[in-house]
Amino acid sequence: MINAIIIVSGGMDSVTLLHYLIKKKQMTPALLTFVYNQKHKKEIVYAKEQASLLKCTNHLVLDLSLLKPLFSSSSLVSSHIQVPGMTEVTGDPQPSTYVPNRNMIFLSLAVAYAENFGVSDIYYGAQKHDEYGYWDTTSDFLELLNHVYGLNRKIKVQVKAPFINYSKTDILKLGISLGVDYSKTWSCYNGESLACGVCPTCAERLKAFFNSGIKDPLPYKNEKNSPHPLIQ
Amino acid sequence: MINAIIIVSGGMDSVTLLHYLIKKKQMTPALLTFVYNQKHKKEIVYAKEQASLLKCTNHLVLDLSLLKPLFSSSSLVSSHIQVPGMTEVTGDPQPSTYVPNRNMIFLSLAVAYAENFGVSDIYYGAQKHDEYGYWDTTSDFLELLNHVYGLNRKIKVQVKAPFINYSKTDILKLGISLGVDYSKTWSCYNGESLACGVCPTCAERLKAFFNSGIKDPLPYKNEKNSPHPLIQ
Repeated sequence: MINAIIIVSGGMDSVTLLHYLIKKKQMTPALLTFVYNQKHKKEIVYAKEQASLLKCTNHLVLDLSLLKPLFSSSSLVSSHIQVPGMTEVTGDPQPSTYVPNRNMIFLSLAVAYAENFGVSDIYYGAQKHDEYGYWDTTSDFLELLNHVYGLNRKIKVQVKAPFINYSKTDILKLGISLGVDYSKTWSCYNGESLACGVCPTCAERLKAFFNSGIKDPLPYKNEKNSPHPLIQ
Repeated sequence: MINAIIIVSGGMDSVTLLHYLIKKKQMTPALLTFVYNQKHKKEIVYAKEQASLLKCTNHLVLDLSLLKPLFSSSSLVSSHIQVPGMTEVTGDPQPSTYVPNRNMIFLSLAVAYAENFGVSDIYYGAQKHDEYGYWDTTSDFLELLNHVYGLNRKIKVQVKAPFINYSKTDILKLGISLGVDYSKTWSCYNGESLACGVCPTCAERLKAFFNSGIKDPLPYKNEKNSPHPLIQ
């Protein structure tokens, strides 16, 4: 019996959250994954693989490619805008990697799905580090959003983000303890055959692996030239 | 130059709002209309006609038919659930005509569209009467939702509903004064060739026309048998 909805992108955070809910919390979630013209749509393959590994039969992949006109200002979607490196986004409170209102859209859809199942808990993989550039991953966002959903008169769905105060390193350590296979996750915004190693999410991911003393199982471009000690 | 986004369904309220923004407020809005497997999808024809009459060249009609699994509990979408009459929904704070989280989804998409245009005002046709069954048309909803959007770090989009304290009669009177052709709007949830005259939105619409002393130009089923004095 489905008792929660979880948004799973196929990245480290949401995949770890999925393992956490199933293995630690004994939940039976329905999974939602979104296609939205992201350059890194290969993440979806991993979302599907993880669902399959965990025997989650209830996995809805929604193809929202038609939303392209809404997201054209984002470097995660537009072919005309290059994905910036981590150093280029530092200090920008809303860099080009921000996808306009994406999290609200995805969470709104997840809430409708929850109402459909008659369940009141939705989970997504917001984590502490993303606060630097994304207003829609913060504790304030979560609190105010849940005030809105508290107005529903039958199913007061609430959005939960258990990792919202976790660093990516905390998430990785938890995931390792839960046996997550990180070779079956994808982060790099560029979505090429090898991870770039320099975009904001690669930088975050590599730092988490470095801090945890583990080598990232994903292959990176220019491993030999990388300044990062663990991928030299 | 686009300076606002408006959600136009093709119903009385949003069509009147569109005329109001253009004729009274001299705005140049971009229009958004949604297809979501609603039984009354003929409303979309009228949304397009009104856009054309008002020379709004920027009108995006998004086909969200793929969201059917999210909305299956609603009588506006599911072929297995009959649209109730007005008398059947009275006293139910969230009747079967409620589409799970639809307004949040549509507004979330409108916000992304606004961010894309770099504009901060979104309009939708919420009105006072719908408060009876729809939490997502109330002043509280609007206020709390705008708190969430106040967190955006670049474009603090705000959702506006100028008719939120208007009755449908107020809206109709305003629309008549603005020259709105209500034969080119659609309300009935059943979406058949003739309006049913008994579903909640027909009842509201007929009452507004009755209160205004005007005959609704739309054809209704069983006009001869109708208890309503103006459609007898």
